[in-house]
Amino acid sequence: MESKHGEKTVLDPFGTSFVADYERLYKEFGIEPFQPLLSKVPNPSVYMRRGIVFGHRDFGRVLDAMVKGEKFAVLSGIKPTGEFHLGTLMTVREIIYFQQHGAQTFYCIADIEAYEDNKIPFEKSEKIAVDNVADLLALGFNPEKGYIYRQSKENHVKDLAIIFGRAVTLATMKAIYGERHIGLYLAALIQAGDILLPQMEEFGGPKPTVIPVGVDQDPHIRFTRDLAQIFQKKHGFILPSSTYHKLMKGLDGSPKMSKRLMNYFTLHDKPEVIAERISNAFTGGRATIKEQRELGGVPEICPVYEICLFHFVEDDDEIIKTYHDCKTGKLLCGEHKKQTIDIVLKFVKEHRRKKQKFVDKARQILQVE
Amino acid sequence: MESKHGEKTVLDPFGTSFVADYERLYKEFGIEPFQPLLSKVPNPSVYMRRGIVFGHRDFGRVLDAMVKGEKFAVLSGIKPTGEFHLGTLMTVREIIYFQQHGAQTFYCIADIEAYEDNKIPFEKSEKIAVDNVADLLALGFNPEKGYIYRQSKENHVKDLAIIFGRAVTLATMKAIYGERHIGLYLAALIQAGDILLPQMEEFGGPKPTVIPVGVDQDPHIRFTRDLAQIFQKKHGFILPSSTYHKLMKGLDGSPKMSKRLMNYFTLHDKPEVIAERISNAFTGGRATIKEQRELGGVPEICPVYEICLFHFVEDDDEIIKTYHDCKTGKLLCGEHKKQTIDIVLKFVKEHRRKKQKFVDKARQILQVE
Repeated sequence: MESKHGEKTVLDPFGTSFVADYERLYKEFGIEPFQPLLSKVPNPSVYMRRGIVFGHRDFGRVLDAMVKGEKFAVLSGIKPTGEFHLGTLMTVREIIYFQQHGAQTFYCIADIEAYEDNKIPFEKSEKIAVDNVADLLALGFNPEKGYIYRQSKENHVKDLAIIFGRAVTLATMKAIYGERHIGLYLAALIQAGDILLPQMEEFGGPKPTVIPVGVDQDPHIRFTRDLAQIFQKKHGFILPSSTYHKLMKGLDGSPKMSKRLMNYFTLHDKPEVIAERISNAFTGGRATIKEQRELGGVPEICPVYEICLFHFVEDDDEIIKTYHDCKTGKLLCGEHKKQTIDIVLKFVKEHRRKKQKFVDKARQILQVE
Repeated sequence: MESKHGEKTVLDPFGTSFVADYERLYKEFGIEPFQPLLSKVPNPSVYMRRGIVFGHRDFGRVLDAMVKGEKFAVLSGIKPTGEFHLGTLMTVREIIYFQQHGAQTFYCIADIEAYEDNKIPFEKSEKIAVDNVADLLALGFNPEKGYIYRQSKENHVKDLAIIFGRAVTLATMKAIYGERHIGLYLAALIQAGDILLPQMEEFGGPKPTVIPVGVDQDPHIRFTRDLAQIFQKKHGFILPSSTYHKLMKGLDGSPKMSKRLMNYFTLHDKPEVIAERISNAFTGGRATIKEQRELGGVPEICPVYEICLFHFVEDDDEIIKTYHDCKTGKLLCGEHKKQTIDIVLKFVKEHRRKKQKFVDKARQILQVE
């Protein structure tokens, strides 16, 4: 098939229909391809192996530290606006991967951003945060080897925001965030503070740090790297590194998951809601069964295939088989949806069971009554 | 004589040549005249008695609390960019007046503003702050009954800035501060935090608060009053009150004191520098002695008269005598300059002597090594 840029994409069970767009990111924005580093990465994660993590900035220095057993950090976080969904699941798995490979690990609850951007009062985001952290722990984050914090309670990130403010013009802010209220710009400065927090003296000083994010977050990474550069002399910052993962499509086939479209599910939707969303999902199937048996499906554009590829089928052989069975017309959409619903519901059930055990611990970590 | 707006001003030893401008502030900006409240004020200060404090917003509720012995607060501060000068002396005397009349007293070292606006690093502003606080104590501020703090160390003001940020549009910021970098806007939010700090739970909750400022600071007062209104329901803020003092002219007769023009002195300039600045000052004198003996001088436009009126002659009868002696041609400029130099140098000498004793205390208050 052809991408919208007209370039041919190769047949690839781990590919998507918009590879050409990712190529553009390499060329125009200076994001480097992840693939050439892959062979050096110890036990690459599912996302790395499947090219879902497709790009990076300066990941080499983090990889060096990993391989040599030197200190490095990983930071990610969540805006406490609602339940864990497949997007948050992704970053959590990424930081757990780095935690298990020796990183000093930071998980930020972006409650200031939730307040400034989504008008969520701190009393409310506090409750959501407890729920989010319980999810985090259930997914395997080790709190003994990681620092989980709320922006509103971590004065260092506010102080970094104050330091950085002097160097940020209105033009820069508008270019990245558009014409917004001051609180939103302040939240952006604080997020830059989050990214450089692992390098503060109190946390052991400058070190390679990786921020695993969706590629849509790159403007913020570049913004923070610019600030790290400006304040490098005084604070000794090492420019933060990033890895970029592809963004998941909505279940309706639209390019993004969106609350408004209800085209995704959370880990806490009722089983019947999840089943219904998957049942009703757009697929890469053909107009008729006959056609599909003859021509095969198009997994590259199929959100059901994508949630399996990204999240729910860990075995590479198994997902490759699914891809080929679809391509050859052997596996039809109805059947694949049924399989997927089973896998997802099994995962969700098990996750919820585990999570219950972590609610008190989450409360304790966040110091919430 | 006529003001630049063409309105006649009355003969008034406490007046200035720009009374008509102050009238405009009443009409156009809703600043209320202070004069009608004066008779109710217990032991009005020199500035109040002489109409140097000429206007206010909502001072009535502070006055009520003063008179009834109810709790109220006063807050002022300094941007630690240099030595105490006549402008800083003025606000200090104003807050000491309120402190002596029962106010819970706050003195803010605006080191974040010094950083964002004047690029003064915190290591440097810390040293300046020690010097400023020693001045403050030497002038009679009672640290046992007041809270002196640095913005950078007072997390409550940062947290208030974060709360307020959500309600502040870019348009508002630009209207007040012009097109500036984000740090400056952040400093403005923090200053709003300073003004409402006395009303936080940790400091005894909502109460009438007066901010004595130069009238040029009114946009910031209005900005903070708007924020107090917006967040009133949630935080219980009482809209802060203000008093406005007139701004001193430069010694060269220009409308403002300015570092660039070197048309003022600090309390720590060498005696010979102070003497020279006063000697070379512009005055309200006539072209010749003969003319001055016949027509009298014009104290209303004279910066030498003004520093006496504002700062160095406490006795009302004495300053009225000076005014009349000048108006009638009895007191010539040379002689008055000589008298003024003597008074100022005596004050400055005594102040420095006292100040030395407070440097250690200042260091202790600011927790500076």
